[in-house]
Amino acid sequence: MDGCPAGLRLNSGDFKETMRRRVPPDPELHSGRVELDEVELLSGVFEGRTTGAPICALVWNRDVDSRPYEEVRFKPRPGHADYTAWRRYGGYNDYRGGGRFSGRITLTHLIAGVIALKLLKRVGVEVVAYTVEIGGIKAREMPIEEIKSKVRLSPVSCPDLRASKLMEESIKKVRLMGDSLGGVVKAVALNVPAGLGEPIFESLESRISSIMYSIPGVKGVEFGLGFRSARLKGSENNDPFTVEGGRVITVTNNSGGVLGGISTGMPIEVSVAFKPPSSIPIKQRTVNLQKMEDAFISVKGRHDPCIVPKAVPVVESSLAMALCDILVEAGVIPRVLDG
Amino acid sequence: MDGCPAGLRLNSGDFKETMRRRVPPDPELHSGRVELDEVELLSGVFEGRTTGAPICALVWNRDVDSRPYEEVRFKPRPGHADYTAWRRYGGYNDYRGGGRFSGRITLTHLIAGVIALKLLKRVGVEVVAYTVEIGGIKAREMPIEEIKSKVRLSPVSCPDLRASKLMEESIKKVRLMGDSLGGVVKAVALNVPAGLGEPIFESLESRISSIMYSIPGVKGVEFGLGFRSARLKGSENNDPFTVEGGRVITVTNNSGGVLGGISTGMPIEVSVAFKPPSSIPIKQRTVNLQKMEDAFISVKGRHDPCIVPKAVPVVESSLAMALCDILVEAGVIPRVLDG
Amino acid sequence: MDGCPAGLRLNSGDFKETMRRRVPPDPELHSGRVELDEVELLSGVFEGRTTGAPICALVWNRDVDSRPYEEVRFKPRPGHADYTAWRRYGGYNDYRGGGRFSGRITLTHLIAGVIALKLLKRVGVEVVAYTVEIGGIKAREMPIEEIKSKVRLSPVSCPDLRASKLMEESIKKVRLMGDSLGGVVKAVALNVPAGLGEPIFESLESRISSIMYSIPGVKGVEFGLGFRSARLKGSENNDPFTVEGGRVITVTNNSGGVLGGISTGMPIEVSVAFKPPSSIPIKQRTVNLQKMEDAFISVKGRHDPCIVPKAVPVVESSLAMALCDILVEAGVIPRVLDG
Amino acid sequence: MDGCPAGLRLNSGDFKETMRRRVPPDPELHSGRVELDEVELLSGVFEGRTTGAPICALVWNRDVDSRPYEEVRFKPRPGHADYTAWRRYGGYNDYRGGGRFSGRITLTHLIAGVIALKLLKRVGVEVVAYTVEIGGIKAREMPIEEIKSKVRLSPVSCPDLRASKLMEESIKKVRLMGDSLGGVVKAVALNVPAGLGEPIFESLESRISSIMYSIPGVKGVEFGLGFRSARLKGSENNDPFTVEGGRVITVTNNSGGVLGGISTGMPIEVSVAFKPPSSIPIKQRTVNLQKMEDAFISVKGRHDPCIVPKAVPVVESSLAMALCDILVEAGVIPRVLDG
Repeated sequence: MDGCPAGLRLNSGDFKETMRRRVPPDPELHSGRVELDEVELLSGVFEGRTTGAPICALVWNRDVDSRPYEEVRFKPRPGHADYTAWRRYGGYNDYRGGGRFSGRITLTHLIAGVIALKLLKRVGVEVVAYTVEIGGIKAREMPIEEIKSKVRLSPVSCPDLRASKLMEESIKKVRLMGDSLGGVVKAVALNVPAGLGEPIFESLESRISSIMYSIPGVKGVEFGLGFRSARLKGSENNDPFTVEGGRVITVTNNSGGVLGGISTGMPIEVSVAFKPPSSIPIKQRTVNLQKMEDAFISVKGRHDPCIVPKAVPVVESSLAMALCDILVEAGVIPRVLDG
Repeated sequence: MDGCPAGLRLNSGDFKETMRRRVPPDPELHSGRVELDEVELLSGVFEGRTTGAPICALVWNRDVDSRPYEEVRFKPRPGHADYTAWRRYGGYNDYRGGGRFSGRITLTHLIAGVIALKLLKRVGVEVVAYTVEIGGIKAREMPIEEIKSKVRLSPVSCPDLRASKLMEESIKKVRLMGDSLGGVVKAVALNVPAGLGEPIFESLESRISSIMYSIPGVKGVEFGLGFRSARLKGSENNDPFTVEGGRVITVTNNSGGVLGGISTGMPIEVSVAFKPPSSIPIKQRTVNLQKMEDAFISVKGRHDPCIVPKAVPVVESSLAMALCDILVEAGVIPRVLDG
Repeated sequence: MDGCPAGLRLNSGDFKETMRRRVPPDPELHSGRVELDEVELLSGVFEGRTTGAPICALVWNRDVDSRPYEEVRFKPRPGHADYTAWRRYGGYNDYRGGGRFSGRITLTHLIAGVIALKLLKRVGVEVVAYTVEIGGIKAREMPIEEIKSKVRLSPVSCPDLRASKLMEESIKKVRLMGDSLGGVVKAVALNVPAGLGEPIFESLESRISSIMYSIPGVKGVEFGLGFRSARLKGSENNDPFTVEGGRVITVTNNSGGVLGGISTGMPIEVSVAFKPPSSIPIKQRTVNLQKMEDAFISVKGRHDPCIVPKAVPVVESSLAMALCDILVEAGVIPRVLDG
Repeated sequence: MDGCPAGLRLNSGDFKETMRRRVPPDPELHSGRVELDEVELLSGVFEGRTTGAPICALVWNRDVDSRPYEEVRFKPRPGHADYTAWRRYGGYNDYRGGGRFSGRITLTHLIAGVIALKLLKRVGVEVVAYTVEIGGIKAREMPIEEIKSKVRLSPVSCPDLRASKLMEESIKKVRLMGDSLGGVVKAVALNVPAGLGEPIFESLESRISSIMYSIPGVKGVEFGLGFRSARLKGSENNDPFTVEGGRVITVTNNSGGVLGGISTGMPIEVSVAFKPPSSIPIKQRTVNLQKMEDAFISVKGRHDPCIVPKAVPVVESSLAMALCDILVEAGVIPRVLDG
């Protein structure tokens, strides 16, 4: 990570909680692979504070079992990047564990996210992400304060604890069937100042969606009402302005806090659709790339039946990263932090 | 536009048809403002071919009426960028016609799109965009060949001509009510080679969504099944591979032609949600920024009751631009075109 | 130009003086081509101030005579970009007037420079460029205040008026011989705050030299003593620090105001070597690219016998541009200017 | 390093020779600090070949002695970045060993250089750097084949072995005096295809000079005759074209292989001026930043009396990196290497 302001207090302990959030406590909800994910800071920190130099963080994979991947070398998993990587890199890519197409790659999002969230906190910006849908089960809408207080109580990061229960059951059931589930994660950023972002090619939405689509498994990104706003009339969708406490706000926030690529000062709301994980034990049709003939595969190894719970902190981190970059560029977060 | 290969045949006539597509023939379907939109090429073309130098194109606004905008200077239109622009630029922005937040800005997408589409054609890539939803009315799914043959027959660019009729009526009705409608545009790119794009931050989806969110009014972007794939099981969503005619294809294309940020060789499919235009005659609540008090606005001037028909070629152009850039970078489109 | 803060007072008259500086009053010192170079502002300015939107400026070439260029189409001028452009663009480049390889392209540097210099002035930074060498004739070293007061008195922008006279004579003489002269331009930026820039790849020198090498004819760029410092001992070259008026300065400024890629707070000094113009009437050896055989050329048309006088404001503008970008990024120049 | 094509054979042994070249065998010529500089490859290589993923290489500093740096924390070394880093990072920078302003940072140039040189070799491009001047002692001009055969025989990488001897003596003498020497390194790239690079802001010279100025201690960069061409007439400086063996070459190469920012096909020649190292035992005037008063410093620790010998492979690597990037972008080096 380059570009982190100097003077931010940071040590390897700061990453612990986030790393823990990646792994739901209930073993039936995830792949079974447990990594300690200890973050070693190699550069960019001195005497407990960032120096302004690039921060290099290292996390060693300890719990590795590459044997199940021999099969996928020439038999690409449907829905996975095995085939496209093979085409892109002429077969020289590291196929073990999916290589850099593995969900493990999101550790970098999390590490950068921890730092971004700390920086945002200094200027009063808060980011919270949570599960709004898994396997078709939708959480009810809730006030943001309730969301914040309950999201950590759910093993799938769904603040609607009733829906959370149903989601958990659904994941466990599908896991037994050798199948997988997708879902939707929503992230909200509070207290983002108005007037951030640029029109057209550097719009807030362009930058945020670009980083969201860096997360493996994402197939849709929408802001505010998103696809639902396409079904409303202008008079229903427009957010009326009003003056409250000497500042301009909008009565509703259908826009998700962005108009014309620039922040309105209302919460920035982004929803991200995750497809069901592609690595499933169920027998599927594929090809043998060496023999160029049809084949079958039943994916072995340890794979998550649903990545949404693990994805929640990744989406949170990604929104934090995007906003942090923009706030540093705009000079709201200074290049040297005092105190 | 910088980066266009040298040797492409190009003249100002090449832009005519696209410019015409912007304006539906039926005056009840749009704002009533008619621009000739003649494209003047100032640089980058010599003896009928591109030189490799940046292409500067100029289109003069002729049919301008800025009077209705005096009111919005200090009374921002709900749902429009008037307020955020005012915050971003400290009130120095050109508020007339929405300035660079006007939909007119998409002329640049169209101009670049014409060039991109010509370049793509040289390597066999074809892009087609069409309306799939307006005001909640959905088009039925159709084979791509049928879409291509019918899309130009519809004044709202919806190849399902039955749905098209309903959409037209819906737009006309909402226009009389002083309100507006949103919708969804889908773009498909055919014959894109497999192996294009990069994982993580430079994924195909990151680049395409980033450019889609540069279009005013876009609130959602999804690939393939998008948000619908979040509701499927892995066994339903995964696209099985098979060998056909000596090459690897997928039986379905739920992924929208992208896996792991890299093209699969199948059609790239992206859907883009447009909100209903914010400028509506209906009286709405807003604020007076000078007096910092609540106010009302009834937006005057010539505004589209639905931008989806005009947006179809813009989405098409945007997908073409993104792919063209990537194909030039990958060396598939060479830096000098012969013949 | 994108990225100009909003609120800067700007009108087309602001460019007049700089455009005039391009043409030395004495017709024997330059090509004889006289362009009015009236700058038309097409966008980015409203009610006399910048809006924050990209500024599009247009200057029409009026005094054009392309006939002499037919010969160079296939007989590249030695020392000019005719041949490399032909290779780079496969022969599709616009060869007339050298196309975008013409010195005319530096008008864009000048236009951006006018804006950059105005922005710098608001934060107290001043940039002055002057000729230090033409055809081997060197100006004596002078205090910056004397330089500033005399540079405009010299038709070749050399503040040492004795040397200026010799340079003028030298240019006139070489012109009669059908030959040309090179020289060195120095630019100095005063009152640049300490602590600007980045180490390694984004060093101040990297950014400034990169922009200097965008100017046609530049073959060398050095900071402070530059190549001369390579001949000194550390004890001679190091600039001792001292405290003066409560701030840290250096006693000498051999470093040219940059250490480790970051500004010291002392004047930034950069020297730029220009080769003699390549377009000369003297008969020279070249090739015929169509016949692929040796040939001769005697370059016709209107060409400067020495570009150094015209290059002085270009170097000044280039340093201003580079610093302006860096000061905007660092937040020293704000995104909205008040008053 | 990101962007390395897939399929390049690479292992940690490939870095050994270059790492060795950093340390002249004669202990009197350098700082006395000896690092093994073993390069550990953490990612981007699989089964002995690059995968196309980013390559992460790790080199541990073993021979570290930070004690002498306590003094420089608040007493910046004249000519070093201690003061500017302190200003840039508000005092939070890691001052030990100069932090990222240390010459040690050039290990990254070397590592990337090894890879770049291997890639260049595949397309026939060769890069060789050598010392042309140390402490005012200049090497005579020599044919490139002689340079290549002799440069490794000189402990200071000067192929003129007579001059080399004088340089060595000069370094040893100045070292005993507690002082230091600067010099000039030249790099030449052979067999670069014509037509590479872009005009104006992305010129070959812009890109190469930008990377050269990333090397600590560089104060000047010139191409071909550079500052000397500023003293020639056009008729002397222009390189006449001729046809030889069916291709266009120039009779001389005063331009250093670049015209209009684009390669001519002749050798690319760049010269880089290094100042004398600033860390010298001789007592120098400085300030105490805490007390804001004048002070003295006599720099302790292990410092090179002349960095030119160590800089030679760094300059070579930097030119290789710049060219490699450009050749990959132009598609000359493919994204996947076969065989």
